[in-house]
Amino acid sequence: MNIANRKLDHIIIALSKKIETSDTLLKNIQLIHQALPELSFDSINTTVEFLGKKLSAPLMFTGITGGHVYAGDINRVLAKVAEENKIAIEVGSQRAALVDPSVSWTYRVVREEAISVPVIANLGAQQLGDKPVEIAEKAIKMIDADAIAIHLNVAQELFQLEGDRDFRNILKNIEILRNELSVPIIVKEIGYGISKEVASALVKAGVKYIDVAGAGGTSWIKVEILRRKLRGEKVDLPGIYEFYNWGIPTALSIIETRSVSSEIKIIASGGIRNGVEVAKSIAIGADIAGFALPALKEAARSKECLDRYVRNIIMELKIAMLLTSAKDVEELKNVPIVFDEKITNWLSQRGIDPIKFLENRKIKKFS
Amino acid sequence: MNIANRKLDHIIIALSKKIETSDTLLKNIQLIHQALPELSFDSINTTVEFLGKKLSAPLMFTGITGGHVYAGDINRVLAKVAEENKIAIEVGSQRAALVDPSVSWTYRVVREEAISVPVIANLGAQQLGDKPVEIAEKAIKMIDADAIAIHLNVAQELFQLEGDRDFRNILKNIEILRNELSVPIIVKEIGYGISKEVASALVKAGVKYIDVAGAGGTSWIKVEILRRKLRGEKVDLPGIYEFYNWGIPTALSIIETRSVSSEIKIIASGGIRNGVEVAKSIAIGADIAGFALPALKEAARSKECLDRYVRNIIMELKIAMLLTSAKDVEELKNVPIVFDEKITNWLSQRGIDPIKFLENRKIKKFS
Amino acid sequence: MNIANRKLDHIIIALSKKIETSDTLLKNIQLIHQALPELSFDSINTTVEFLGKKLSAPLMFTGITGGHVYAGDINRVLAKVAEENKIAIEVGSQRAALVDPSVSWTYRVVREEAISVPVIANLGAQQLGDKPVEIAEKAIKMIDADAIAIHLNVAQELFQLEGDRDFRNILKNIEILRNELSVPIIVKEIGYGISKEVASALVKAGVKYIDVAGAGGTSWIKVEILRRKLRGEKVDLPGIYEFYNWGIPTALSIIETRSVSSEIKIIASGGIRNGVEVAKSIAIGADIAGFALPALKEAARSKECLDRYVRNIIMELKIAMLLTSAKDVEELKNVPIVFDEKITNWLSQRGIDPIKFLENRKIKKFS
Amino acid sequence: MNIANRKLDHIIIALSKKIETSDTLLKNIQLIHQALPELSFDSINTTVEFLGKKLSAPLMFTGITGGHVYAGDINRVLAKVAEENKIAIEVGSQRAALVDPSVSWTYRVVREEAISVPVIANLGAQQLGDKPVEIAEKAIKMIDADAIAIHLNVAQELFQLEGDRDFRNILKNIEILRNELSVPIIVKEIGYGISKEVASALVKAGVKYIDVAGAGGTSWIKVEILRRKLRGEKVDLPGIYEFYNWGIPTALSIIETRSVSSEIKIIASGGIRNGVEVAKSIAIGADIAGFALPALKEAARSKECLDRYVRNIIMELKIAMLLTSAKDVEELKNVPIVFDEKITNWLSQRGIDPIKFLENRKIKKFS
Ligand SMILES: Cc1cc2nc3c(=O)[nH]c(=O)nc-3n(C[C@H](O)[C@H](O)[C@H](O)COP(=O)(O)O)c2cc1C
Ligand SMILES: Cc1cc2nc3c(=O)[nH]c(=O)nc-3n(C[C@H](O)[C@H](O)[C@H](O)COP(=O)(O)O)c2cc1C
Ligand SMILES: Cc1cc2nc3c(=O)[nH]c(=O)nc-3n(C[C@H](O)[C@H](O)[C@H](O)COP(=O)(O)O)c2cc1C
Ligand SMILES: Cc1cc2nc3c(=O)[nH]c(=O)nc-3n(C[C@H](O)[C@H](O)[C@H](O)COP(=O)(O)O)c2cc1C
Repeated sequence: MNIANRKLDHIIIALSKKIETSDTLLKNIQLIHQALPELSFDSINTTVEFLGKKLSAPLMFTGITGGHVYAGDINRVLAKVAEENKIAIEVGSQRAALVDPSVSWTYRVVREEAISVPVIANLGAQQLGDKPVEIAEKAIKMIDADAIAIHLNVAQELFQLEGDRDFRNILKNIEILRNELSVPIIVKEIGYGISKEVASALVKAGVKYIDVAGAGGTSWIKVEILRRKLRGEKVDLPGIYEFYNWGIPTALSIIETRSVSSEIKIIASGGIRNGVEVAKSIAIGADIAGFALPALKEAARSKECLDRYVRNIIMELKIAMLLTSAKDVEELKNVPIVFDEKITNWLSQRGIDPIKFLENRKIKKFS
Repeated sequence: MNIANRKLDHIIIALSKKIETSDTLLKNIQLIHQALPELSFDSINTTVEFLGKKLSAPLMFTGITGGHVYAGDINRVLAKVAEENKIAIEVGSQRAALVDPSVSWTYRVVREEAISVPVIANLGAQQLGDKPVEIAEKAIKMIDADAIAIHLNVAQELFQLEGDRDFRNILKNIEILRNELSVPIIVKEIGYGISKEVASALVKAGVKYIDVAGAGGTSWIKVEILRRKLRGEKVDLPGIYEFYNWGIPTALSIIETRSVSSEIKIIASGGIRNGVEVAKSIAIGADIAGFALPALKEAARSKECLDRYVRNIIMELKIAMLLTSAKDVEELKNVPIVFDEKITNWLSQRGIDPIKFLENRKIKKFS
Repeated sequence: MNIANRKLDHIIIALSKKIETSDTLLKNIQLIHQALPELSFDSINTTVEFLGKKLSAPLMFTGITGGHVYAGDINRVLAKVAEENKIAIEVGSQRAALVDPSVSWTYRVVREEAISVPVIANLGAQQLGDKPVEIAEKAIKMIDADAIAIHLNVAQELFQLEGDRDFRNILKNIEILRNELSVPIIVKEIGYGISKEVASALVKAGVKYIDVAGAGGTSWIKVEILRRKLRGEKVDLPGIYEFYNWGIPTALSIIETRSVSSEIKIIASGGIRNGVEVAKSIAIGADIAGFALPALKEAARSKECLDRYVRNIIMELKIAMLLTSAKDVEELKNVPIVFDEKITNWLSQRGIDPIKFLENRKIKKFS
Repeated sequence: MNIANRKLDHIIIALSKKIETSDTLLKNIQLIHQALPELSFDSINTTVEFLGKKLSAPLMFTGITGGHVYAGDINRVLAKVAEENKIAIEVGSQRAALVDPSVSWTYRVVREEAISVPVIANLGAQQLGDKPVEIAEKAIKMIDADAIAIHLNVAQELFQLEGDRDFRNILKNIEILRNELSVPIIVKEIGYGISKEVASALVKAGVKYIDVAGAGGTSWIKVEILRRKLRGEKVDLPGIYEFYNWGIPTALSIIETRSVSSEIKIIASGGIRNGVEVAKSIAIGADIAGFALPALKEAARSKECLDRYVRNIIMELKIAMLLTSAKDVEELKNVPIVFDEKITNWLSQRGIDPIKFLENRKIKKFS
């Protein structure tokens, strides 16, 4: 099966099946209402700088697609909305275009439409081969990217029919890219989260941008199992339910990653669906929030739908900021919040003191 | 849309839809049964002094309505029952009458009927304008009020079609009123609760009466969303469910507020529906308890219904006092209680030691 | 309404309605399985001494009835089964027979049948009047009792149509009885539990036997409300649900009472329904366990049913003892157990360290 | 009733009724996803040494059956699959063959088929009589066993019609066997778990292999009760539900047993159903994992079914190892995990510090 067909399978399953499992645990974090914000709604400032450009809000579309005609259409819609709303956009894995340059237009549309906002290239960590820099630069150049995301998708590969199951030397390649590329590198998961152990290894390797993509949103294991079923393959793993819920919940992954360093930029993603969740993500340590599945769904309906969705999320974020008395994103990073017992219990066992974590939030400026 | 119509919308929605969301968390607090109270039921003393007058029980109707004919009818019923049962009563926002004096009779009926009990004027914090003292005195004079309540309704305004979204300079106006008015000022929420941060700011501004109006009762965001739908407006915020449950649960708001000062009078409200909840509110730090929605509902049925409802609540309060061996409201403030894990966890993270809070309850007399 | 009729109402409601509410929290305590008990089932010794007599198992029927013909029948069955199984038995309140001596046979049948086991007289704390010793001695003499139980039923009286609502001077009367009676006095609740405050007051008054009768079994408030409804009275207390669940759960009441003194005998009751619950009650501090409602229900079926029920409970108790490696009741008092979070949280707030409580269990012999 | 018939009853009930109760609590333990395992799937090493032989994975079929024709068939299937997959196998209790040597072929088939893997003999602790060594050696010789499992089944015996209820001198017999047998002795439960008290006694007696067989899988009490009902006997124990859930959950039993010694081999069993549960068991202290009921069910279908089941479990185990970055079983014993509150609360009360337990996991090599 060629890559394009596999990618189309993914889109079809994502659009037609329930593929969200687990729980982000963002519901287990409470923002504290402040009845006296002493702010005007219109003066709430949601702008942030990201990859040297200014976003209207701390939001991005994370990598979704590319490589076939329909993907090109989707990408154009995503890019138009990103540009109009001034938020960042990441393309899907560019492997298809590296293998078959005739489909590279399905990625290039993104840069064509999203002129002024950060556009992020995307490759799988296992697709870097022996010449990682060369391949990555090709992907970057293809869309004139502001950064490149390298995705770690071990769990997905394992459940994929055609999966590549050798996950060695990835860290070394990441370190090489981080040193030699022309643009910054973002390391991202795709729905199982970054642990503090992994965050720590990445920070040591010099990585400055991590997209946690934790559990609670799109479950790739479920997608791949559904795809196998679609193809008529029998799947009778007794523990499949446990793998459907595999992964570090997004909220915990953000905190674990932030506990490792106050110097890195963290993208919260995996099950982020509304502006209150964006606000919570930032209040616990993220810099910006991303989402893929809902962006795909809305884009598949129409540009107008996606546009309204994004505007609504920004609206909710502003409301949440006003109601917690945060005049800008820096202040949002330090508003009072409360963790429930599930979260405090997890953090304590992971060597993170919940109270201290909250007190230390005044995160240093990223330079 | 004029104010009267909006207020009528509110009443209609309150009477016909389920508008209570969230949870007061009063269920998570347990009063301890005392099998040997050594008291006689008839000697249980529920009286309290409030705003210089004696109430038969620590109860009040909090602000509901005014400004149109039907509101006048409701207010008359509320006031008669308040007077007969010797409990306090607060009118709804008097803005309508300040704008259109021809409807001021709908507020004045309250004072006419409620001769001997505290009657409280009511204005929104944002309606004070440049001449807060002048406007407030007008409202006070209109009903010969014993105090004036200034309500903070940021959350509601944000979801309101016609909402005023500038919430600056409110604290300054409150401080001015508190210094210059002829009667005490009560600062109140309307269903999202007062945090310890806000309580602290208010206490610093000299405020001596706070009505917490926490989450667990009437949800104004839900009311405003329902109103929009009623008017045919499409509402598709992805995070609407999170806002339906926005706010600090009433139990926590009482404790947070009390943790800031033992000198202020606290009115517990937001989802208070029966006498056991009144007892619990007082046991965790409130001085008196208020309710709006059930009062409106009973009043809309008949004076008799409202009267029975109030008498039943007082009956339950007395039973709860006897069963916890509290001969009067001062003793009720110090009966043994137990918080569940949800509450102790919240308090710890908010810097309030639950055990110490309980031990320190012996609240100093209010002078 | 005369006493006999009221008592008959109670029996009818108890036999026909669901009157058990709340939760004993015994489910929240876990006995630890010991795979190597090194015991023989036949050598498990469940006997205990109680009121100077030897019981085959630490069990008793707590006070249920008396005063009318049907009660006489029930009491005869209860007494026969108590005698045959060598367990203790307490009669229902003897007030009816003090008022009308013609019904005293309905109590006397108990002593006639239960010759060799402890028989316990029963009076309400409020029925002692000015001459408590005289009245109590009459009740004791009526059935040649080994002890007299004085029941505290504040909650029930409050919800009773004909309730006496003066609960003063009870402690004084208890102290008088305790000093002057010919037999020991047991102080008991009837379904709302004894708090450590009350236990402390009783211990100070010299009481040596406490029957906690906690929440989780028969709810007298529910019984009385059902009786009111039966009589056609409208009951519309908004907080009735909270009162249905009023009271200290039996497990907590046992622990609170035991925390006050290691010298007293504690009867666990209120919702005890099987032998595992008996074992748990003893493991957390009780000396013997009692039950009323299931005894009444089985007795109303037949002597055989009640007999089998009791034998099954003893069988379960023996199994639980063997599986926890307790060769006798003294050892059962010290087997390893685990409290869940709900219980540890409650105890901590009530000033009882759960770990220390468990370690201190080696209870001194009662003399 | 002869033994063969009873054993057949067990098989029939196991195959036709729901006999799994309680909860292993393995769901309450979370493995941490590691997005950067730096491993190749094919290089994951699941082999372990067990009883001097090499297994392809840390798995075994625990004792199920023997003694009648159908049992012989089942055993042959189990043994073939054990041999082909290189996992260990334990036969069912050999008592039947000791009493009636004509059925010993139903056990011997196991050794005939499972030539190269550990085969484990099996006897009940109470069937050892006065000459334990003689009897055990007979059982060992019968199947040329690599070890013998002595099962403790107090709970089952108590609920069995024909149960032997004298459980004394078992520890002494175990100590004798452990000193005098030609092969190692494994002490095992059958579904109620080993407590730290029992583990401690066994370790003192020199036992080096413990199969915890905790609660969460097959409930023998339920099996025996169902068998009684099948035979037309009335069973009306009021506490039967509590006994259905009797026992120490498998996860807790593993931890309790490991807390006693780092020198012993622990077999995790009781409700283990998939490879993720195998991985969790090992991560909290077990060396290998076993299961009985699912093996029986699959074997009763066909050899192919059982074979696929085993291969799937191994597949899941490898996936779980890769995703937690454990290249072999030794590393799996030390991967980061998180306990939920239920488990940390239990451990604390049992004198086991959860954090310390996790830190001390680097278990010494077994010699
Ligand atoms: C249909 C689909 C395709 C995706 N393809 C890619 C991809 O090519 N590269 C990548 O890094 N992530 C990919 N992702 C993962 C997302 O970027 C994101 O990390 C993940 O879906 C979790 O976010 P969500 O819950 O908002 O969907 C894809 C997600 C979806 C739903
Ligand atoms: C129909 C309705 C109208 C209200 N209008 C006012 C108002 O004009 N001014 C005010 O301070 N609060 C107003 N409130 C808020 C109440 O005073 C109270 O704070 C809130 O409803 C929470 O209490 P509850 O759960 O008992 O209703 C209103 C409430 C209701 C239900
Ligand atoms: C029908 C009925 C009548 C009772 N009457 C008395 C009584 O007269 N005196 C008394 O001390 N307790 C009385 N009790 C209370 C019981 O002794 C016991 O404390 C209570 O019912 C809790 O136990 P249970 O849950 O096993 O029923 C009565 C209980 C029932 C069900
Ligand atoms: C049908 C059946 C028969 C069993 N017979 C024996 C036995 O003879 N000897 C023994 O030690 N365990 C026996 N067991 C217990 C198992 O070895 C195991 O400890 C228990 O069933 C828990 O594991 P599971 O939940 O995977 O079934 C038997 C289990 C089953 C289901």
